[in-house]
Amino acid sequence: WEGEFFPNISYIKYEGPASHNPLAYKYYNAEELIFGKKMKDWLRFSVAFWHTFRGDGGDPFGSPTKRWPWDDGSNSLTVAVRRMRANFEFLKKLGVEKWCFHDRDIAPEGSTLEESNANLDYIVSVAKKLQEGTNIRPLWGTAQLFKHPRYMHGAATSPDVRVYAYAAAQVKKAIEVTKLLGGENYVFWGGREGYQTLLNTDLKKELDHMATFLRSAAEYKKKIGFEGTLLLEPKPQEPTKHQYDWDAATTMGFLKNYGLSDDYKLNLECNHATLSGHSCHHELETARIYGMLGSVDANTGDAQTGWDTDQFLTDVSEATLIMLSVIKNGGLAPGGFNFDAKLRRESVDVEDLFIAHISGMDTIARGLRNAAKLLEEGRLTKLVEDRYSSFNSPLGKTIEEGKVGFEELEKISLEAEEPPITSGKQELAEMIFYSYV
Amino acid sequence: WEGEFFPNISYIKYEGPASHNPLAYKYYNAEELIFGKKMKDWLRFSVAFWHTFRGDGGDPFGSPTKRWPWDDGSNSLTVAVRRMRANFEFLKKLGVEKWCFHDRDIAPEGSTLEESNANLDYIVSVAKKLQEGTNIRPLWGTAQLFKHPRYMHGAATSPDVRVYAYAAAQVKKAIEVTKLLGGENYVFWGGREGYQTLLNTDLKKELDHMATFLRSAAEYKKKIGFEGTLLLEPKPQEPTKHQYDWDAATTMGFLKNYGLSDDYKLNLECNHATLSGHSCHHELETARIYGMLGSVDANTGDAQTGWDTDQFLTDVSEATLIMLSVIKNGGLAPGGFNFDAKLRRESVDVEDLFIAHISGMDTIARGLRNAAKLLEEGRLTKLVEDRYSSFNSPLGKTIEEGKVGFEELEKISLEAEEPPITSGKQELAEMIFYSYV
Amino acid sequence: WEGEFFPNISYIKYEGPASHNPLAYKYYNAEELIFGKKMKDWLRFSVAFWHTFRGDGGDPFGSPTKRWPWDDGSNSLTVAVRRMRANFEFLKKLGVEKWCFHDRDIAPEGSTLEESNANLDYIVSVAKKLQEGTNIRPLWGTAQLFKHPRYMHGAATSPDVRVYAYAAAQVKKAIEVTKLLGGENYVFWGGREGYQTLLNTDLKKELDHMATFLRSAAEYKKKIGFEGTLLLEPKPQEPTKHQYDWDAATTMGFLKNYGLSDDYKLNLECNHATLSGHSCHHELETARIYGMLGSVDANTGDAQTGWDTDQFLTDVSEATLIMLSVIKNGGLAPGGFNFDAKLRRESVDVEDLFIAHISGMDTIARGLRNAAKLLEEGRLTKLVEDRYSSFNSPLGKTIEEGKVGFEELEKISLEAEEPPITSGKQELAEMIFYSYV
Amino acid sequence: WEGEFFPNISYIKYEGPASHNPLAYKYYNAEELIFGKKMKDWLRFSVAFWHTFRGDGGDPFGSPTKRWPWDDGSNSLTVAVRRMRANFEFLKKLGVEKWCFHDRDIAPEGSTLEESNANLDYIVSVAKKLQEGTNIRPLWGTAQLFKHPRYMHGAATSPDVRVYAYAAAQVKKAIEVTKLLGGENYVFWGGREGYQTLLNTDLKKELDHMATFLRSAAEYKKKIGFEGTLLLEPKPQEPTKHQYDWDAATTMGFLKNYGLSDDYKLNLECNHATLSGHSCHHELETARIYGMLGSVDANTGDAQTGWDTDQFLTDVSEATLIMLSVIKNGGLAPGGFNFDAKLRRESVDVEDLFIAHISGMDTIARGLRNAAKLLEEGRLTKLVEDRYSSFNSPLGKTIEEGKVGFEELEKISLEAEEPPITSGKQELAEMIFYSYV
Repeated sequence: WEGEFFPNISYIKYEGPASHNPLAYKYYNAEELIFGKKMKDWLRFSVAFWHTFRGDGGDPFGSPTKRWPWDDGSNSLTVAVRRMRANFEFLKKLGVEKWCFHDRDIAPEGSTLEESNANLDYIVSVAKKLQEGTNIRPLWGTAQLFKHPRYMHGAATSPDVRVYAYAAAQVKKAIEVTKLLGGENYVFWGGREGYQTLLNTDLKKELDHMATFLRSAAEYKKKIGFEGTLLLEPKPQEPTKHQYDWDAATTMGFLKNYGLSDDYKLNLECNHATLSGHSCHHELETARIYGMLGSVDANTGDAQTGWDTDQFLTDVSEATLIMLSVIKNGGLAPGGFNFDAKLRRESVDVEDLFIAHISGMDTIARGLRNAAKLLEEGRLTKLVEDRYSSFNSPLGKTIEEGKVGFEELEKISLEAEEPPITSGKQELAEMIFYSYV
Repeated sequence: WEGEFFPNISYIKYEGPASHNPLAYKYYNAEELIFGKKMKDWLRFSVAFWHTFRGDGGDPFGSPTKRWPWDDGSNSLTVAVRRMRANFEFLKKLGVEKWCFHDRDIAPEGSTLEESNANLDYIVSVAKKLQEGTNIRPLWGTAQLFKHPRYMHGAATSPDVRVYAYAAAQVKKAIEVTKLLGGENYVFWGGREGYQTLLNTDLKKELDHMATFLRSAAEYKKKIGFEGTLLLEPKPQEPTKHQYDWDAATTMGFLKNYGLSDDYKLNLECNHATLSGHSCHHELETARIYGMLGSVDANTGDAQTGWDTDQFLTDVSEATLIMLSVIKNGGLAPGGFNFDAKLRRESVDVEDLFIAHISGMDTIARGLRNAAKLLEEGRLTKLVEDRYSSFNSPLGKTIEEGKVGFEELEKISLEAEEPPITSGKQELAEMIFYSYV
Repeated sequence: WEGEFFPNISYIKYEGPASHNPLAYKYYNAEELIFGKKMKDWLRFSVAFWHTFRGDGGDPFGSPTKRWPWDDGSNSLTVAVRRMRANFEFLKKLGVEKWCFHDRDIAPEGSTLEESNANLDYIVSVAKKLQEGTNIRPLWGTAQLFKHPRYMHGAATSPDVRVYAYAAAQVKKAIEVTKLLGGENYVFWGGREGYQTLLNTDLKKELDHMATFLRSAAEYKKKIGFEGTLLLEPKPQEPTKHQYDWDAATTMGFLKNYGLSDDYKLNLECNHATLSGHSCHHELETARIYGMLGSVDANTGDAQTGWDTDQFLTDVSEATLIMLSVIKNGGLAPGGFNFDAKLRRESVDVEDLFIAHISGMDTIARGLRNAAKLLEEGRLTKLVEDRYSSFNSPLGKTIEEGKVGFEELEKISLEAEEPPITSGKQELAEMIFYSYV
Repeated sequence: WEGEFFPNISYIKYEGPASHNPLAYKYYNAEELIFGKKMKDWLRFSVAFWHTFRGDGGDPFGSPTKRWPWDDGSNSLTVAVRRMRANFEFLKKLGVEKWCFHDRDIAPEGSTLEESNANLDYIVSVAKKLQEGTNIRPLWGTAQLFKHPRYMHGAATSPDVRVYAYAAAQVKKAIEVTKLLGGENYVFWGGREGYQTLLNTDLKKELDHMATFLRSAAEYKKKIGFEGTLLLEPKPQEPTKHQYDWDAATTMGFLKNYGLSDDYKLNLECNHATLSGHSCHHELETARIYGMLGSVDANTGDAQTGWDTDQFLTDVSEATLIMLSVIKNGGLAPGGFNFDAKLRRESVDVEDLFIAHISGMDTIARGLRNAAKLLEEGRLTKLVEDRYSSFNSPLGKTIEEGKVGFEELEKISLEAEEPPITSGKQELAEMIFYSYV
């Protein structure tokens, strides 16, 4: 059967802000130029295969709720092919040219690693064929190292050497197929790389193993000539009580400590930012200022619940802050915005899949428009520059160059007047920011 | 006047667990040997001058409640001398040989830096005299860079170069007096080194300035031959919305990134661990395994409130976990356990100061006894070692030595059987642990 | 001296959304009609005397930072008069006609209750005079029962009967002066009515005392013919670990349980909602649907910190949700929007006071405009009504009238088909909502 | 096949605190008298069928991990019988005489309600037979109204009247079988009775429906002569964003508001207490003082994660606080301690099921011993009574009797001296408490 999965949904078009059509873009206009670059090139949207085509609505207290036309509940290769076809129909109708996947999302786990690899090869060949003649390519691929029971204690950080080896084999293969499909990045989210209790854990050994594993991955990538960026995705906890890649700062510190900073960048997720007690903007900026901002998982969490909700971003203020970072970063390429977001369990219409993505894309596009205008008019930039202007003085320069020690600074301070108390102008900064939202 | 401030309190003695006397130790027996070391040398307790002698019971919604015999509400030098005398009487009666201070706690801020320095010199000379003939010395000193309005935007991270210079002058002096008093460490807690909003903040500039400042401090320390350890104290937030030294991992990452790892260790506070979403044990272990565990601020927070409560630690389980880390670290020296803890606002009796410290010291001493027994009997240690035993195999060793790549591991995995699913034995580990509490 | 305190600030005018003038309204146009009612009558803005004229910038780690022209740091009657004059100049320049106060904010505590009452009488007479010829009146008054050490264990819930009596005397007087000034409501925020630890607390006794106290207040109000509404203000914690008026639901349950529901309504604060794990909208709706929504403390908290930040509301989405509740409630009168919000510690310019209030007022005004349009166009209302439409069926009606029991319902269900799985349309609802923001 | 499921585990015996045998009780000695009552009658332990016999180790990021000998992964009646037999073998080996169940845990959902009822009848008959000749009976039964997609929007609060009816039918049946099995209580945990977003929710309608539903349940219970207690179980959120039975206070307020207080008590879960920002002790006390404490779900959550972890309680301090409430309540009968706790996902040995229950039972038994001793020696009780002693004065009595108004209290206060500032003795209370742990 070669028919459509979404026969009642046509290609989503840009209709502008006045439209009430849920199946149209109001802010995302792919070819429109912002600061001389197309919106689609600023945003590089990607659909997450797992949420959109494998999400079944199950939760810890409830059974699956979705009955998608491409699915029959089985994990067969036949259904895997249908899902992949649905994926491409969905991408085309949305007008999105990137997608992200885990190896085991797209192809069923076999009874042996060999069989799993064969399944994967088959589905990858299907995907490759579907990609032909299109601009559609993976934003990134990854290996699912958290779902199978063998990984319940960790993959790279498993106490069992056989599991470490198995994970290595799985990542090797996943990098290869990402390369084959023309993927631009490869992501590590170590869902089980952490601990449930320190009482049964050798923390140092696990962190050392994780570093060794990542070092081997970087070596293998080079060996096969994969040009994509390797990305680590921080998350503080869930499913483990403590995940080693807690947040951007922790992850960058880990990379630095083990000499891996040049081989990895970060894939930051807004929802994970919330769980770690930070704003998404904070996480993006923390990575950006050190050149470590690689890609973004564009979703949102719920500040009032303590678990991963992976919702589509709808808050325009948040989107504006995110886009401030992205514009300052000169964009995200070869990274992009992957919609690591899922429908609510209670949203069971095929239409809801489109509405959710359109809503998320429009929110970020609106953020891009706002941020561009904010930066263009420069009121906030000026406020910040003015605050630090005293460091443009000769003394400021000397300090920043590390050429002045505590003794000279004491001498200066003993002679100087008490420094003035100057307003931080936070309320003004907020007034300016919100006037662009 | 040379009289006593605590005339009704005698020297606190060890009376053993059966005692009902609130003014006696039930677990802390200073000279008793644990693993061949005196309890007092394992614990190296220190009284925090600021909470005990400057804490007035004020909170954001309430006025001061305490009326201590050494205080008259003024910030005069005369009262400063009385407070210092009270400090030494308190230390002696408790049998504690260390104390910690901020420059501005012990001596009043003057109208100029010169005057402030003179005040500090005077009080330091008083303290030095009181130390004579005793073993009492500072565990550490520090500069108060968060209370005065000049520091409201930060000290090392202030946007005003004059404030940076002033802070440098103040730290220089504080290191000097710490050295003069025989202090064994010097601590940086950057209460204002953070931001209230990213909207008015240049994040990169502030972090660079902070690193430069710390580098200068380390240089000055060496220059004057101060042998003490420099310590950074992480805290995630409060008073700022985001403090740069968020937690142990973030702080170590920062040090690594700016090449400062060899010059600094960490002073970890349990209450701050809670605020950052970690257990105190997690923070201690995170630092310990990389050789960065310097000293401990022994207090506790409230897992259900979101602000800094600085309570005396009373939870024996927590104390046992803390002491597991400390014993594995071979102790904390030259660091120790500083009671960065304050009486509740409603505790206004002089007696309460003693009860609180005795309670905190006994809790940690109980933790030491429990942890020593737990390690001695080895049941938990064995459980952990068994979990990782497969890494003692030839393959495990080769992996740990970084001598095997993804290709070999794939080959091995393709040939191997599916790894077995082995229990993590968390409930057993907890059963064992709690049987020692 | 009779001069101006804000000589450089003129009367704030409405200039519309395009204006870049920080000292102008962009959305708040007092006389403009929305749904046939003036914006100022929908919003009934009020300035909080304590934050604006007593806020000094002190925090738990820092000294005061503000140096306002009306203040000299003393707590004298002379300064109290200056502050009151500044309050009226501020109200007039903002174009706001309501203010809120605690007894001890506006007049200094004396050395006896008698003296405190005299001070209060004097300042109230000054305020009354300043009110003459204006429409300015208190939105509400209240007694400060949390700052003085005598209240450290509670006021109505103090274990000391003398404190209970003292609090009664203070509330009696505060109700009287609120009446005298033409105040429209009287608020109870029981900052110390809670516990720090259950270990030293008789929970039942304290709750019983609180109910008795509130019953007496309602009786006294009637006795003197005060027509204003009595309002309880929920907050979960801080300064106590647990405050009895935890949130809207808890407070309404308490009132119901003690037979006080007819005498009290709620004064809801957004910042307190956040601290209790709810959205502000949730709290407003919880009260509104039972007719208990009395007034709003219009501020915001920080979802990522765990303490009371009392910031000016700037989030337009939140403001829109708030205004949805308020419009559905038919407005808040005799309640209103009190700006229980304070400048950031680092905002020390007189101008910042104006900017912050303008920003907060504009945010809420924007919310009003959005919510009115959203309700007018009815798309979201319809979505909700459709979801529940099956309850308009005969069976639905019978169930709602309580006329059908479990046996009939079992019979119906045994015969019926499996109910269909219908989408909750959350993403569509969010898309619609955000298109009005 | 009639063999044993736990052939290597013998009957668990009491061996006393010195035992290192993981499969023995060290503190729980069923027949030992505490305050004249057997430990087993104080504690009334119950095994939760769902966690122990249906828990498969799946989590939102992972597949099932358990391979129990009674299970084959199917949901057949045959396996249901095996599970029930395993349950009784488990209960007997543990020496526990109560169990709890949901209708759908013990018997598979059929393709129609009729078939589901038939399945349930069959398995109940099996269970009834297994109960014969034993003292084993259900502590409580309940209906599973959260797992099936039909309930995704709520059961009693579903917007679909057909779902409301279906839920009524299911509860009717579940009450009947609970009665048949000799169950002593019936529990409502409304996992889906809440909202995901207010944007698509009619809050008032849902709360009214919930009350109507509960009223009908109470009526039906009386009609069939079921003598058990009806219990509501609070939880703040998860799976919904906001569950209506948020915490004890909210739930009691709801019951009061709808006139249902006499028909229901509360089933309190420690883990849910944590999620709502309260201690378990707080929740128990809040219910106890108003006579609403019905039963306890004895587990624990993780203060640092924001989701439901349902762990076995191991913290002795917490257990001691819990038992303080329970002893003051005169026990829990006809309620008890149900182990609503599950093995960690990584604990896959049959032995772990025993270890976890033994650990949980011993922890609570230890709490009982500690609390009994604490109450017997009376030091803490006295401290509390002393704090409130001023209310034993004539004035105190008059106030408590509601016989004195604000005018008299003002007169008294004007004449009285300033009330003294008395210490709350929190540190002393903590020292006393922890000396019993």
